[in-house]
Amino acid sequence: MTANWTSLRRKKQSNQNILQSPRSTSISTTQQMSIFPAYCRIHSWGDSLEEAYEQCAMGMFGYMTDTETVQPIDTVEVESEGEDLESLLFHFLDDWLFKFSADMFFIPREVKVLHIDRMHYKIRSIGWGEEFSLDKHPQGTEVKAITYSAMQVHDKEKSEIFVIIDI
Amino acid sequence: MTANWTSLRRKKQSNQNILQSPRSTSISTTQQMSIFPAYCRIHSWGDSLEEAYEQCAMGMFGYMTDTETVQPIDTVEVESEGEDLESLLFHFLDDWLFKFSADMFFIPREVKVLHIDRMHYKIRSIGWGEEFSLDKHPQGTEVKAITYSAMQVHDKEKSEIFVIIDI
Repeated sequence: MTANWTSLRRKKQSNQNILQSPRSTSISTTQQMSIFPAYCRIHSWGDSLEEAYEQCAMGMFGYMTDTETVQPIDTVEVESEGEDLESLLFHFLDDWLFKFSADMFFIPREVKVLHIDRMHYKIRSIGWGEEFSLDKHPQGTEVKAITYSAMQVHDKEKSEIFVIIDI
Repeated sequence: MTANWTSLRRKKQSNQNILQSPRSTSISTTQQMSIFPAYCRIHSWGDSLEEAYEQCAMGMFGYMTDTETVQPIDTVEVESEGEDLESLLFHFLDDWLFKFSADMFFIPREVKVLHIDRMHYKIRSIGWGEEFSLDKHPQGTEVKAITYSAMQVHDKEKSEIFVIIDI
C-alpha cells in the first residue's frame, strides 16, 4: 500500500493565476496540454554535514506537507548505509521516504542526524512526528523517488548538498 | 548572445518593477535549504500528431510567459529535422526555443504545424508573435533545454506526447 496524492490532487485546473501558487503541482493546463513539475532540486547547507543532511530531509518532507502541522508524537529511528557520501545521502533520503510512503505513513516534524560514520558510510538519524493524515496535514506534492542526477555532497568547512527528487 | 531572464531584465532597467518574482521558481526556502523545480513534464495531445506538437510548443512558451499578452505582429517559420518522431520533437522544440533565447527573442502567440513528413522526419511550422519584452509580457520560468528523458510520442488515432524540459 502506497500513500498517493493522485486521488486528491485535482484541485487546481486553472491555467491562469498560477503565478501566486508556487506550491501548486499543476502549473498549466488547457484542453490539450498540461505541464507539471517533474523533478525538484533540493539545496541544503549547514555548519556540519549532519546539519546539511537533516535540512535536506526536512526539505523533502516540507515539500510533501506543512511540517509545522505535524505533532512530534512518535519517534522513529532510521539507520542507512552507503558506499560514499552520495549513496549515503541517497539511502538516507530513500529510507525516510520509505517510512512515509510504504511503511507506516510516518511524517516527521523534525529529523535529527545523530551521527555520520565517514569511514564506513553509515548514518543514524531520528525523527519525531506522527502518522500522516489528510485531516490534519495539508497535502503537498508526492515525492516519488530520490535520484542521483547531478547530486553533489560537499563536506567542507561549510557543508552543502544538491539533490534532485522525482515528484 | 543568449536571452535569459537576466539579460532581458537589464533591457528593462528604466522600469521599476523588475523584481517581479519569476513564476513558480522558488518553492520553499529556509535559512538552510531551498527547493526549486528543476524539470517539468509537458503532456500534450490532439486529433493529429501535428496538433499534439503544436500544443507541446505552446505549452513550453506558455510556461515562459502568458502568451495571451503576445501580439501576432511578426511571422516566423521553423523547419526542423530528425531521425524519428522523438528526435523530430526534440529539434522542433529546440529550434523554437532557439528563436526565443538565442536568435531574436521571438515569442509566439500561436504555433501552427503545417506539415510533418513521416518518411523523412521533417516538420514545417509557423509562429505568429513578436519580440519578447518585459514591459509587455509577464516573466514566467526560463526554459533552459529540451531533454530526451522519458520522452514519448504516440502517433495513433489520438496523438499524444510526453516531454521533459529543463527549467
